[in-house]
Amino acid sequence: MNETGFALDPRLAADTRPVASLPLCDVRLMNDARYPWLVLVPRRAGLVEIADLHEDERAVLWQEVNRAAAALRAVARCDKLNLGALGNIVRQLHVHVVARVEGDAAWPGPVWGNGQAAVRGDSQARLLIAALQRQLAAPGTPDA
Amino acid sequence: MNETGFALDPRLAADTRPVASLPLCDVRLMNDARYPWLVLVPRRAGLVEIADLHEDERAVLWQEVNRAAAALRAVARCDKLNLGALGNIVRQLHVHVVARVEGDAAWPGPVWGNGQAAVRGDSQARLLIAALQRQLAAPGTPDA
Repeated sequence: MNETGFALDPRLAADTRPVASLPLCDVRLMNDARYPWLVLVPRRAGLVEIADLHEDERAVLWQEVNRAAAALRAVARCDKLNLGALGNIVRQLHVHVVARVEGDAAWPGPVWGNGQAAVRGDSQARLLIAALQRQLAAPGTPDA
Repeated sequence: MNETGFALDPRLAADTRPVASLPLCDVRLMNDARYPWLVLVPRRAGLVEIADLHEDERAVLWQEVNRAAAALRAVARCDKLNLGALGNIVRQLHVHVVARVEGDAAWPGPVWGNGQAAVRGDSQARLLIAALQRQLAAPGTPDA
């Protein structure tokens, strides 16, 4: 796959930590302790809309979203998964995968644009990222 | 495909008008004149999460989301498409496809949970639905 010219948007880079590199997407953890929240970014230059991806890569994107969602649900409580592709502020194509819990900081509203992020300490972040990496590396669950 | 036992959630039914019936999903127009806003509902009983769909039907879901998005962009101004699958309030699986315009009522925030819907008159709704139906029926654009 052609990653020529791809560079992660600086705002996404600042708001997240790296978790894993899947065939198409970088998986990153949002720096917000209020929610277990992943962001998937296809490593393709110039993408804004999902329709900008070739059809075969769109299929890969959704497989990787499902895979990230399964990993998130394996390591965090999740009463309802939230998926979103908005891009109203950061235009570089990215897909949000959020584990929502009844009564969480934004419940039942969306997480986007809701208040200030809560700091997640380094050790907490490292533990969560390691658990996610184990799930994403687990065989037999490529698309659970 | 097996539609046994499927019934549209009464809240979704009350908040939307029917536009088209694709192979997997009903496409419906949200009753909110602030945004051109479609909702896709797979006609399968008991679905809550996208992961509840069989893998082949998940692929169809995303193809139909792309098809609905292309139709929406063909008939309405769209500076940025927003996709979302939340379900925090209505649990029946449904995917939102919203044409966002810079400066619209919720810009740049999400549409979900933002203020009160604005009434769209019957004639306006009928015109928009007819235009969407023409786009969704157009040959050669099953997955644009």
